[in-house]
Amino acid sequence: MASSRQAVVLLSGGLDSAVVLAWVREQGFSPIALSFDYGQRHRVELEAARRVASALGASEHIIQKIDLRAFGGSALTSDVAVPKDRDASVMESEIPITYVPARNTVFLAFALALAEARGSHDLGIGVNALDYSGYPDCRPAFVEAFERLANLATREGVEGRKITVHTPLLHMTKRDIVAEARRLGVDIDMTFSCYDPVEGGRACGHCDACVLRERGLAED
Amino acid sequence: MASSRQAVVLLSGGLDSAVVLAWVREQGFSPIALSFDYGQRHRVELEAARRVASALGASEHIIQKIDLRAFGGSALTSDVAVPKDRDASVMESEIPITYVPARNTVFLAFALALAEARGSHDLGIGVNALDYSGYPDCRPAFVEAFERLANLATREGVEGRKITVHTPLLHMTKRDIVAEARRLGVDIDMTFSCYDPVEGGRACGHCDACVLRERGLAED
Repeated sequence: MASSRQAVVLLSGGLDSAVVLAWVREQGFSPIALSFDYGQRHRVELEAARRVASALGASEHIIQKIDLRAFGGSALTSDVAVPKDRDASVMESEIPITYVPARNTVFLAFALALAEARGSHDLGIGVNALDYSGYPDCRPAFVEAFERLANLATREGVEGRKITVHTPLLHMTKRDIVAEARRLGVDIDMTFSCYDPVEGGRACGHCDACVLRERGLAED
Repeated sequence: MASSRQAVVLLSGGLDSAVVLAWVREQGFSPIALSFDYGQRHRVELEAARRVASALGASEHIIQKIDLRAFGGSALTSDVAVPKDRDASVMESEIPITYVPARNTVFLAFALALAEARGSHDLGIGVNALDYSGYPDCRPAFVEAFERLANLATREGVEGRKITVHTPLLHMTKRDIVAEARRLGVDIDMTFSCYDPVEGGRACGHCDACVLRERGLAED
């Protein structure tokens, strides 16, 4: 078993998870980065994840291959069109078709499995309750429920070593996140947030992820 | 979206999950069986899962390939020896090396993702709090915490359609489960429970899973 000062960080390759990785490292943890090749149309984000893991000093980077495409139900894992240029107020009030059913539950479950296997008690995830694009599994109540589950689900929990889900961005706006990225020395250009990349793997500039990212950068 | 009377059942190919599949069908659900090729040494159980899904009338059987071997931490996903001929009292008091970190959390997370993608609100899992071989993620408190999470994690939950985790075996002994299998017409010989199959894919007869199964059959 490795040091309890390891933390497993979910890393998509986007801005938010890169900031979490840098933040976790600042807190004194040795971060293990965990990414997923899950059938996403924006698979190019994994190249960004590799760059970010390396640049921000992850001790290890595991890419778990799973097949959420087999289940369907989302524009991110099917040929359904990704909505473009949605208004912020709409984003806040609707769960969009880019929502991948239970994706953060699946990702956190793997993070928990990896943490437990390595003797770590700390997970990090870049969920955000403000600029969250309407996803149910980005809300504080979801994170709290997962943390509660984690402490019942594992050997660590049973033996009384508290498992913590770190969500440093939970109450930040995109603007705050950009500022935090700059403070922590995260190279924003290295990250990739787009849900629906165009030819050559470039960001589309119009999906919710691009709109939120651009808004954060413009306000900075 | 399919009928809300579909239920996703975690199917290992063992006796317990086969009984859950039959029970769920008896309750009027159309069961979608979900199995995992996760790096387990007893991968032969997947052949049993295929037989069981077909024989018990699953409407669909999905085998999700994941790699828990990459994380390590268990005798079931590594070359560490599987303990043999353990006494029942020891099984109840210790978490054994066959425990796969957070496995049921990962499996239930996928079941939830599949259910949500298909518009189903019901999951089934064959956990058992009595003859449970000491696994933390087989306890009632774990199941309750997962159900709570499921209702916060999903579009279904947010929109107020209750997601239920069915655990018909939770308070049964292995003897009860064998009786339930007979009542429901489950062909026990079709199922496969062993953690550490010997040559030719036969059950070892000595691991916890074999010991518990044999005890259930002997008491019947």
